[in-house]
Amino acid sequence: MDNPRHRQTLEVAFGDTDASGWVHFPNIFKYAELAEHAFLRSLGIVVFDRNEGGWPRVKASGDFKKPLMTGDRIEVLLDVSRVGGASVTWDFEILGNDGDLAAFGSMTTVRVGNDGRPKILSDEERSNLEGK
Amino acid sequence: MDNPRHRQTLEVAFGDTDASGWVHFPNIFKYAELAEHAFLRSLGIVVFDRNEGGWPRVKASGDFKKPLMTGDRIEVLLDVSRVGGASVTWDFEILGNDGDLAAFGSMTTVRVGNDGRPKILSDEERSNLEGK
Amino acid sequence: MDNPRHRQTLEVAFGDTDASGWVHFPNIFKYAELAEHAFLRSLGIVVFDRNEGGWPRVKASGDFKKPLMTGDRIEVLLDVSRVGGASVTWDFEILGNDGDLAAFGSMTTVRVGNDGRPKILSDEERSNLEGK
Amino acid sequence: MDNPRHRQTLEVAFGDTDASGWVHFPNIFKYAELAEHAFLRSLGIVVFDRNEGGWPRVKASGDFKKPLMTGDRIEVLLDVSRVGGASVTWDFEILGNDGDLAAFGSMTTVRVGNDGRPKILSDEERSNLEGK
Repeated sequence: MDNPRHRQTLEVAFGDTDASGWVHFPNIFKYAELAEHAFLRSLGIVVFDRNEGGWPRVKASGDFKKPLMTGDRIEVLLDVSRVGGASVTWDFEILGNDGDLAAFGSMTTVRVGNDGRPKILSDEERSNLEGK
Repeated sequence: MDNPRHRQTLEVAFGDTDASGWVHFPNIFKYAELAEHAFLRSLGIVVFDRNEGGWPRVKASGDFKKPLMTGDRIEVLLDVSRVGGASVTWDFEILGNDGDLAAFGSMTTVRVGNDGRPKILSDEERSNLEGK
Repeated sequence: MDNPRHRQTLEVAFGDTDASGWVHFPNIFKYAELAEHAFLRSLGIVVFDRNEGGWPRVKASGDFKKPLMTGDRIEVLLDVSRVGGASVTWDFEILGNDGDLAAFGSMTTVRVGNDGRPKILSDEERSNLEGK
Repeated sequence: MDNPRHRQTLEVAFGDTDASGWVHFPNIFKYAELAEHAFLRSLGIVVFDRNEGGWPRVKASGDFKKPLMTGDRIEVLLDVSRVGGASVTWDFEILGNDGDLAAFGSMTTVRVGNDGRPKILSDEERSNLEGK
């Protein structure tokens, strides 16, 4: 990922690992979501509000290349791959302690209102998300 | 615990462990909560509903005596220690694979409405909780 | 999924949900893993052992069609899509309270030894996994 | 807590909440553990290593005074209440977005070797932990 829209540094918590000593794989998706939410906030877009709704996922996929362990300093690189009417597809890469690619994947989210139904992005939100 | 009000058998998930190979301690409280919720349902009491509210905790404590590991069949014993106006204090014990005491503790919960404020128990709920 | 190799009934825990009221999406993968591990155990295959190793994932993907909520009785259907030298690709479907498809996806796992390196499946393990 | 030994700022992740909209209570203990681990690292003490062991808990308790929600900036204050031969008792306070006390509690941990047995603290570790 050459020019990610967002970079997030995290530390692997002991509680994110499992008995193998490695990060339990669903937490890879939590790391991607943390980066996404930090980026949305940086754009002034609401992440979740009981009255306004949020951003559930309709798809998520990941490839896990190298294990991550307790205390590893990792970096999540985040890119916007596609902006739809009310949806965003994100690409992510996770670099391990040594800077090597540890995981990558994508997630498609839909912005919904507090009724759980899609809520179309405003022109401003769209252009912020598209980086224009 | 001689005559628990509820017994719940669970299997320790791989994802509940941490790099030590043992269950990550906050999950002990999840097991106690699972047993509490199953017991509430058995009494016909709502566990959580967006419009009716739920049972947040105001206190929780645990002593951890023996490690639990992936695939262990455990049993959660649950007792009602005190019923207040809108609160319940629960005692729990967790028996490991071998039947030995692995953990014990207590939790105090308050029944709240969808406004987050305490919602007094009805006479029927109270007598069901008190086992009378 | 017409003839799944394994069916697992689960109840959605309150603690599996997030502020939206729906299951937090990484937990969908935990449900799939729970079913996989129960199935492996039913075949007499070790899920995880510090001295023998386990089954880390190299890939996971999911499509989320309908929200799952606290207390929902769900069913995880599991199929073996491919068995490699030391790997298994699983397909899963999750049916919600109403029997409708709530989520589906796949996971590719690799059996590793306690050194973290792939450990070839025995003929017996392979034929058990392939259902022959 | 007037002079905490360590202060840790965290942001409440969406995934740490439950359907009530508030942080799911076991995550309060995860926040306390995160602060403890960061503090141990700052003292040069190993948090977890497969060959050297780690710091399982034998006790944990918490009082939850105010709800924490998605995106809240919180602060964990950590103090060392007692250092034993191989154990440490920690006190923690969690301040919410508004600086008010949201939760407090304590945890007793035991340092164990890779055999799971207590491993006595060195004089240097002890004096670092006692802040002398």
